[in-house]
Amino acid sequence: MLCAHLNPENNMKFLTLAVVTGVALAAPLVFAQAKPDQQIEYRQAIMTVMARSNAVLGAMAKGDVPFNKDVAQHHANLIAGLSDLPLSAGTFGPGTDKGAPTKADPKIWSQPDKFKAAYDKFAVAAKALPAAASDQKALASALGDLGKTCKGCHDDFRSK
Amino acid sequence: MLCAHLNPENNMKFLTLAVVTGVALAAPLVFAQAKPDQQIEYRQAIMTVMARSNAVLGAMAKGDVPFNKDVAQHHANLIAGLSDLPLSAGTFGPGTDKGAPTKADPKIWSQPDKFKAAYDKFAVAAKALPAAASDQKALASALGDLGKTCKGCHDDFRSK
Repeated sequence: MLCAHLNPENNMKFLTLAVVTGVALAAPLVFAQAKPDQQIEYRQAIMTVMARSNAVLGAMAKGDVPFNKDVAQHHANLIAGLSDLPLSAGTFGPGTDKGAPTKADPKIWSQPDKFKAAYDKFAVAAKALPAAASDQKALASALGDLGKTCKGCHDDFRSK
Repeated sequence: MLCAHLNPENNMKFLTLAVVTGVALAAPLVFAQAKPDQQIEYRQAIMTVMARSNAVLGAMAKGDVPFNKDVAQHHANLIAGLSDLPLSAGTFGPGTDKGAPTKADPKIWSQPDKFKAAYDKFAVAAKALPAAASDQKALASALGDLGKTCKGCHDDFRSK
């Protein structure tokens, strides 16, 4: 039985919805109440989960572990589904440059437009993963694109 | 345009796939190399993301924030999609009772069958969320069921 996620057409519908509803994922009244340390914990947790899924996908794309379409699809869907949260759920809210240990660079708040532009490139690349996950070569290519956007944002907006 | 996730039939296919492939999500050779502190970080990150999505859903179910089907579906899908990872991705591996601050109770490793049974109840309830997310009352009911399974596992297997 094929999962809806494995159907490219359905994936496109999912991606379209994710883009359309991106701004609404915040449930703003919930997250507006989150304290700075909670916002920092949340954004770091999202990044950790995406990074681990990326590691699984990378290992399969490289052939370090056997390629498995279902596993690849699951982790690609997770990255795509999580990708909008750091910005739309307000995890980089005012005052979250401190309150808990963080590598978030102060430029995130001093250059918000530049940060959003860099982050948005990642979100676009993340949402392209599900459609590429069923083919090892396509996945490797999509992961390469994704990796550039990770680095592009981390270089400028994550402290060493 | 309706997202594939919003179609109950497709949701059932997704859930079926998730159950079928649950044991494979590990990509074992990747995670077998994760050190105890990395496994602890990963499982805590997964729990944090699921807890925040649960909070968003809970606020909408209670009417504390306006009910939004798309947002509800997105967070329900996230919880369902993440629910298998803590066990299938080996985040409670040998030696991960320490290595980083953790509330994981030693009984997880001394009573693994009982822990798995308690966790599995949560995973089943988590996978029931997406089909309930489009209706506020159904969501509230499904969240109630989920909450019991969270508590059921935390009572015995999470230290105070």
